[in-house]
Amino acid sequence: MVVGCNPLNDKYFIAVDWGTTHLRAYLCQSTAHGLLLIDQRVGPGVVKVACGFEQSLFACIAPWRAKYGVLPVYLTGQITSSIGWQETPYLACPLSLKQIIDASVSLTVQDHPLTFLAGTQCSLQNNLQDVMRGEELQIAGFLQQHQQYQQGRVLICLPGTHTKWVLLENGEIQCFKTAMTGELFDLLCHQSVLIQAANCDGEFDWSAFEQGCQLTLDSDSGNFVHGVFSVRTMQLSGALNSLQARAYLSGVLVGSDVRAARYAKEWQLNNTTQVVVVGTEQLRRCFTLALSRIGVTCQDYPIQEATLSGFNYLSQLLQQAVNATHPA
Amino acid sequence: MVVGCNPLNDKYFIAVDWGTTHLRAYLCQSTAHGLLLIDQRVGPGVVKVACGFEQSLFACIAPWRAKYGVLPVYLTGQITSSIGWQETPYLACPLSLKQIIDASVSLTVQDHPLTFLAGTQCSLQNNLQDVMRGEELQIAGFLQQHQQYQQGRVLICLPGTHTKWVLLENGEIQCFKTAMTGELFDLLCHQSVLIQAANCDGEFDWSAFEQGCQLTLDSDSGNFVHGVFSVRTMQLSGALNSLQARAYLSGVLVGSDVRAARYAKEWQLNNTTQVVVVGTEQLRRCFTLALSRIGVTCQDYPIQEATLSGFNYLSQLLQQAVNATHPA
Repeated sequence: MVVGCNPLNDKYFIAVDWGTTHLRAYLCQSTAHGLLLIDQRVGPGVVKVACGFEQSLFACIAPWRAKYGVLPVYLTGQITSSIGWQETPYLACPLSLKQIIDASVSLTVQDHPLTFLAGTQCSLQNNLQDVMRGEELQIAGFLQQHQQYQQGRVLICLPGTHTKWVLLENGEIQCFKTAMTGELFDLLCHQSVLIQAANCDGEFDWSAFEQGCQLTLDSDSGNFVHGVFSVRTMQLSGALNSLQARAYLSGVLVGSDVRAARYAKEWQLNNTTQVVVVGTEQLRRCFTLALSRIGVTCQDYPIQEATLSGFNYLSQLLQQAVNATHPA
Repeated sequence: MVVGCNPLNDKYFIAVDWGTTHLRAYLCQSTAHGLLLIDQRVGPGVVKVACGFEQSLFACIAPWRAKYGVLPVYLTGQITSSIGWQETPYLACPLSLKQIIDASVSLTVQDHPLTFLAGTQCSLQNNLQDVMRGEELQIAGFLQQHQQYQQGRVLICLPGTHTKWVLLENGEIQCFKTAMTGELFDLLCHQSVLIQAANCDGEFDWSAFEQGCQLTLDSDSGNFVHGVFSVRTMQLSGALNSLQARAYLSGVLVGSDVRAARYAKEWQLNNTTQVVVVGTEQLRRCFTLALSRIGVTCQDYPIQEATLSGFNYLSQLLQQAVNATHPA
C-alpha cells in the first residue's frame, strides 16, 4: 500500500477526483486537527484527455512533485472505470464504506504509489443496474463530518455531471440512481439549437429557473421530451432572453431529475424523508429549491469538504493497514 | 415573386430544405406528369454554417447555376428562423397550407429570386407555444399525394432532428408538438459518456431498440432522466455491445417521444386514432414499432417524396400568382 515514500512526507498525499469532465487534484496534509488543503489544480476529464492518463496526471502534479518528492496519490471517479486508466471492480450493494476502501487497487507509476478506489453497483426495481465511482468516498467523508447521519435512513442527493441519489441505512449504501442532468445541461446549453452562444454571461436568473422547474415538476409523464423545446419557443416569443433561457433550461432538467427521484420505486421521497443535498453552492440551491416545491425540506452541505474528508478517511484507513502489516 | 428568370427555365427550380443540421438542395423540373428530381446536393445546416448563408447556398448550387443559369430558389426550414438568413413570420394555427405559402418572403440575391416560406405557431394546453418551419410544406406535399387525408382528423408524426407531431383536421393544421428526439440522440451518441466512439459501424439492432423503447414506453414519469444511464450500465454488465447500445439509446428516446405523444393533452392517441408517420425508412420503422407497442396502427410514407411534392405545390401556387398578376 503506502510504501516507498519519503517518511518525512508520510502525512502529505495527493487526492485526485478524476471524473468524466474534470480532473481535480488536491495536495493535502493530515494533521491532528483534520485535513489541511495546501493547494489544488485542475486538468482534463477522462473523456477529454488527449495525450494519455499518465502524462495528464503527472503534468498536473508536477509542481508538487518538484517540491515534495514522491507522495501517495489516491484516485476516484471515472478514471477507475472501463473508460479510465485502471479499472477497479464494482462491488454490489448493500455495502459499508470501509468495504469499498478495502477493495482499492494499487499501482506504482514513476515511483508514486497510486491507489484507485473501487466502484459500487446496485440492482434497481426495473431489473436494470446502476453504478457509481467516486461518490462513495464523498459520502464516506460526509458521514465522518456529520455522524448524525450514520444512523437511520437518509437519501443523499449529489448533483453534478451525473446526479446520484443514494439511499443510506445505518451508514451503509442500500441502492442509488443516476440522472445525467449535468451532462444534458452541458450538451443542450453549448451544442443544441436551444441556446445561442452569445450574451450568456451574467447573474443566474432564479425566477426563470423556478419557471422551468415547475414545468417538469408538475408535468405528466413525458413533459421533459416534449417540454424542453419551450427553452427555444420562450425566447422566440420574447418571454425569456438567452441568459434567462439558460436558467430556465437548468430548471427544466433539475425539475425532471427531482420528479424522477420523487416517483422512484426504490425509496419514498416525501415530506417525512430525511434528505441531504451535497454539492456546489449553485447546485445545492437548485436542488433545495426544487425539493421545496414538492414539500421536501432538506439539509445541504458543500461537496468539496465532503470530498477532502473522504480522502482523509481513505488515507487514515490505508495508513492503519500499513501500520498493521509493518508494526513499529 | 418569380421574375427575372430565363423563360426557358420557368419550369426548373431549386428547392432547399435547410434545417438545423443539414442543407438539402434539390434541382427539380415541373412536368405534366408531376415533379422530376434531376439532381440533389447537400451542405451544412444552419448551426453548422461557417462562412455565411449566401456563400454556403451558392457554393452548393454552383454546378446547377453554371448549367441552367438563373433559377428560382425556394427555401424552408430553420434558415427562415431568427437563427437563419431571412426571418419570416410565424402564422398562428389553425391554418390552411395555402395561407402559409401566401405569406412567403422574397429576396433577390445574385439575380436569383429567393422565396423563404413562413413558419407556424400554436398554443399548447400548458400555455406554452410551439413553432414549426418547413414541416408544413412537407405536410402540404403529403396531402397533395394522399388526398384521402384531407378530410377528418389525422395525427401526422414527422420524426427527425426535431420530431413534430401535427394534428390536422380537414387538411388544416390545428396544433403540433415538438420533441428534440433526433438532436438528443445525436448529442448523446457522439458527445456523452454513454457511447464510446469505436466499433459503431454495423447493422441496426432492432431487438436492442425494442428493449430501450419498452423501458420508456412502460415507465412511470421520469424514466427518461433516470433511465437513460442504463445505456452505459448495460454495456458495463456485458448485456449490450456498443453497437447494440446505440440502438438501445435510440429506443429509449423514441419510446419517450411516443409516450409523451400518447399522453399529450392536445389530442387523443389510441387505437382509434388515424396516425401517419412520414420520415426516412429507418425512422418510420422506429416510430411504427413504438406505436404498435401501445396498440396504435399507423400508415407510413417516405419523407423525401412529401418534401418534393410540397415544393412542387409551392412552385405551382407561386406560378399561378405570377400568371394572375401578369396575364398572357
